[in-house]
Amino acid sequence: MSHSYQPQENKRSDDKSIRARMLISCPDKAGIVAAVSQFLYEQGANIVQSDQYTMDPEGGMFFMRIEFDLQELEVRLPSLQEDFNRIADRFSMRWSIFRAARRKRIAIFVSKEDHCLLELLWQWQAGDLDAEISMVISNHDDMRSLVESFGIPYHHIPVTADTKAEAEQKQKELTAGKIDLIVLARYMQIVSPKFIEQYHNRIINIHHSFLPAFVGGKPYQQAYNRGVKLIGATAHYVTEELDGGPIIEQDVQRVSHSDNVNELKRMGRHIERIVLARAVKWHVEDRLLVYQNKTVAFV
Amino acid sequence: MSHSYQPQENKRSDDKSIRARMLISCPDKAGIVAAVSQFLYEQGANIVQSDQYTMDPEGGMFFMRIEFDLQELEVRLPSLQEDFNRIADRFSMRWSIFRAARRKRIAIFVSKEDHCLLELLWQWQAGDLDAEISMVISNHDDMRSLVESFGIPYHHIPVTADTKAEAEQKQKELTAGKIDLIVLARYMQIVSPKFIEQYHNRIINIHHSFLPAFVGGKPYQQAYNRGVKLIGATAHYVTEELDGGPIIEQDVQRVSHSDNVNELKRMGRHIERIVLARAVKWHVEDRLLVYQNKTVAFV
Amino acid sequence: MSHSYQPQENKRSDDKSIRARMLISCPDKAGIVAAVSQFLYEQGANIVQSDQYTMDPEGGMFFMRIEFDLQELEVRLPSLQEDFNRIADRFSMRWSIFRAARRKRIAIFVSKEDHCLLELLWQWQAGDLDAEISMVISNHDDMRSLVESFGIPYHHIPVTADTKAEAEQKQKELTAGKIDLIVLARYMQIVSPKFIEQYHNRIINIHHSFLPAFVGGKPYQQAYNRGVKLIGATAHYVTEELDGGPIIEQDVQRVSHSDNVNELKRMGRHIERIVLARAVKWHVEDRLLVYQNKTVAFV
Amino acid sequence: MSHSYQPQENKRSDDKSIRARMLISCPDKAGIVAAVSQFLYEQGANIVQSDQYTMDPEGGMFFMRIEFDLQELEVRLPSLQEDFNRIADRFSMRWSIFRAARRKRIAIFVSKEDHCLLELLWQWQAGDLDAEISMVISNHDDMRSLVESFGIPYHHIPVTADTKAEAEQKQKELTAGKIDLIVLARYMQIVSPKFIEQYHNRIINIHHSFLPAFVGGKPYQQAYNRGVKLIGATAHYVTEELDGGPIIEQDVQRVSHSDNVNELKRMGRHIERIVLARAVKWHVEDRLLVYQNKTVAFV
Repeated sequence: MSHSYQPQENKRSDDKSIRARMLISCPDKAGIVAAVSQFLYEQGANIVQSDQYTMDPEGGMFFMRIEFDLQELEVRLPSLQEDFNRIADRFSMRWSIFRAARRKRIAIFVSKEDHCLLELLWQWQAGDLDAEISMVISNHDDMRSLVESFGIPYHHIPVTADTKAEAEQKQKELTAGKIDLIVLARYMQIVSPKFIEQYHNRIINIHHSFLPAFVGGKPYQQAYNRGVKLIGATAHYVTEELDGGPIIEQDVQRVSHSDNVNELKRMGRHIERIVLARAVKWHVEDRLLVYQNKTVAFV
Repeated sequence: MSHSYQPQENKRSDDKSIRARMLISCPDKAGIVAAVSQFLYEQGANIVQSDQYTMDPEGGMFFMRIEFDLQELEVRLPSLQEDFNRIADRFSMRWSIFRAARRKRIAIFVSKEDHCLLELLWQWQAGDLDAEISMVISNHDDMRSLVESFGIPYHHIPVTADTKAEAEQKQKELTAGKIDLIVLARYMQIVSPKFIEQYHNRIINIHHSFLPAFVGGKPYQQAYNRGVKLIGATAHYVTEELDGGPIIEQDVQRVSHSDNVNELKRMGRHIERIVLARAVKWHVEDRLLVYQNKTVAFV
Repeated sequence: MSHSYQPQENKRSDDKSIRARMLISCPDKAGIVAAVSQFLYEQGANIVQSDQYTMDPEGGMFFMRIEFDLQELEVRLPSLQEDFNRIADRFSMRWSIFRAARRKRIAIFVSKEDHCLLELLWQWQAGDLDAEISMVISNHDDMRSLVESFGIPYHHIPVTADTKAEAEQKQKELTAGKIDLIVLARYMQIVSPKFIEQYHNRIINIHHSFLPAFVGGKPYQQAYNRGVKLIGATAHYVTEELDGGPIIEQDVQRVSHSDNVNELKRMGRHIERIVLARAVKWHVEDRLLVYQNKTVAFV
Repeated sequence: MSHSYQPQENKRSDDKSIRARMLISCPDKAGIVAAVSQFLYEQGANIVQSDQYTMDPEGGMFFMRIEFDLQELEVRLPSLQEDFNRIADRFSMRWSIFRAARRKRIAIFVSKEDHCLLELLWQWQAGDLDAEISMVISNHDDMRSLVESFGIPYHHIPVTADTKAEAEQKQKELTAGKIDLIVLARYMQIVSPKFIEQYHNRIINIHHSFLPAFVGGKPYQQAYNRGVKLIGATAHYVTEELDGGPIIEQDVQRVSHSDNVNELKRMGRHIERIVLARAVKWHVEDRLLVYQNKTVAFV
């Protein structure tokens, strides 16, 4: 039986059904902002928020995020997208438009540590994480009753050296076409390059150190051994390079000589869950663009 | 049915059954540290941690917290306390000794906001909050299934203008002699002076502003109206003066002009739960002394 | 003799001579961004940075800051401004354009505390504060040799109860038409309403507390008495209401029970200088708009 | 001519002439605190502050710092130290006693970046850095007038590949027996192992990254390339391993995708000077113990 939490309505009064978000990246050139904003104006859209960043005024890359409102958005979006192609072509844009009302579907992968999962579940039920948590997949069965009490399906897929390929096949079947984002919330198994490729820039991992310090296993032990005065956590998109993907968010916490490894782990859990939750929130709100090995975060 | 979380063992390897904590305050005078540490040495105790603070070297107040280990602590504590009286008298000390193994019993009071309660429950089940959460008392019934899923008794005591006295009487009956600490985790009812007196320096409240700014109701609205660039939260012992008791802990979060009142509330919830959880942790670990309207926090 | 510091070149490679910054505020309405960006495009300008904020999507205020590059800016600016009037009229805009190459001229007012002055001088000589420090005015003569060693004129204008009006008259004569911004860098004299009116939203003060807590005199003593766990500083525009003007920036620093008032002052000096320096930097880079009693800070 | 800054009196009212600080490290054992505090009491000393840390309650290392007041300290210290040997022997202590009135003598080494030097000079003249700045040594002549304006001797010792040994010989001659602490305030030359050995745990360096991330040259460029969301600085004792010595203090600053390398440098300067100044302050106040490759910092 569930303790019957349902995600509350997002508290902003805005009518989300008419809200869209547009992400653009292209080589910088005069007239981009004018062309895009003129286009949206002619379509009858009202720009609510606009952010941009030019990597280098002379010949660099240009990145833009626009939130706009458009009446009858769902009906009119296909033709708007069709029409936008002429502008996109003119400026060699990579671009996407997302309807705010179409919430991203998340699969959370966990192992035995529950703190990152719990934070995401809480923020979701509080209405702060505007997404669907469609399923939780774990190589252990420990958190089934917790997850199911939120009304979320729980899939236990054990992973051993022998069953690794088979397990990943099951993960693919569960997620294919049903999931927009995979969150590794302290999932302690390596994900294969093939799986990563399928979810390019759509898998977020939390690493329990201030990257690039302490790559790999036992980062708190490494931090303790080095005698650092701050510990950190890093949320990043997963690429083939271990702990090497584009960094989305990082934060740190002061520690002292008197904190042993267990204390560091305890204090670190807090940073991990905050940092991961921020990264997931930004992703589902279409605030992140990836360029080469970095993120542009309009937050 | 519960999702069967039980608090995990505290992860420090220390044997808590022999650990005691001593809190002392007295007028400053030469020889206090020597007398106390010599006493403990003669008793066969081993000092594990010691903190002290002198308000003013010349004639001010002296505060001390000592953690020590003593074999067969439970059996030997009464005579140790008896013997300590001669030192206490010599220096006019106010003092207490607490066994670490005797976990403090907490009653959490809540209304409709669940974030502070959830943080405490989560830290408790993770083994980070070394206390018993003996009961949750609420003027609403909303969180019953959540709380009961942790195996904790939930008491719904409605409060109206007419039933206020009666409600407080029920609260007293539930807690009297069974509770060491009351935590107001966004409990939106005023607690009477009589009740406060009974739990002198044993009621912790979370106020959702950086006190003394924005005393009273709707602090986020007040903060928004004033245009502050940081919002905060304050955990304090409850006294008769509204939001005026000794401050235990405070923290803040950066905000910007673009955050409306609902955003401030959302961001503030995070600070509130962190600040309250720290304050409760410090209290149950006997790290707080109150002197006049301030706390000495050995953290 | 001076120790001959000259402000270094600003290290960004951008050609500042063609850079302009535009600040706009008006009632929100569809088409503003399109109109402005189309206008700039037709003028041959290239938008380098653009920030906007809508107080409320339905009928609120709209604020915008645009940085753009335009060849032969100085020559072409008058006609661009002339032409822009038709757009400004259409949307009932309040607006200004600033050339980045035209550095704002600052008069710093000080009394006996030098830390805020020193921070501004250092940041200026390091090329981080892109402004002219045209003069320092003080009611004491203490910092003359320091200030003159930076090649900056120093004016000693004593202030007593009797000479207050006369002193302010001298200040006006020194600054009138020569100064764009007045910075009260721990200037311990009250500035008259008339003087404030003359420099409306162009006087920045640093208050040594986290406003609105601890308005008025001796804020560190007030903070100590209240037993706060964080101290702060606030930079704000000066209005007639004491410590009540629009807040530009705030920051805090953790303190403990063991910090006495002198320690708070010492630690606070560090926060004060950082907070004031940020506020001044944002002002001279045209990043601040004032609306009612708040600032919109595009930083 | 100097602008005649003299260090102000330390503002605490304490009589420093009778204040001593004791640092102790030894294997943990019951009775240490009792023995030391009883000893000091019998000598007539009054303990003002005491901090301790036990690495592991069962058989680990014990570290202690005690501040005490003793009348006629300077005269009585030799016999007190003589007497203390019997306690030190009993517990196999490494220990030192420092008179607070005997300020540590610092030589600051700089190259072309002045921000760390300036912060130290400013804190020194404000009375916040309780030490003598005995000399500044640089491989360039750029900061002579600045340093001499504070009344501090400036030694220009150029360093080239050919003259390295000779330069270090000059540095040794200038500092030998006259200097207690060497501060590398962005000194861009490698110091030889021999020189390091001579000043074992008495050379503090500031590295402009959050170590162990970005060891070696151009850390801000490295940070930019990796796309980190926080930049940091680290003060550490210098050992033979490049950027590998015991960490004293670290801090970080939030950055974004829009900050280029020059912006990171500019923002980083602020963190560097704060972190270095804290580390130097803690060293001269005898708050640091080094054990293996870590510091115990009683702050």
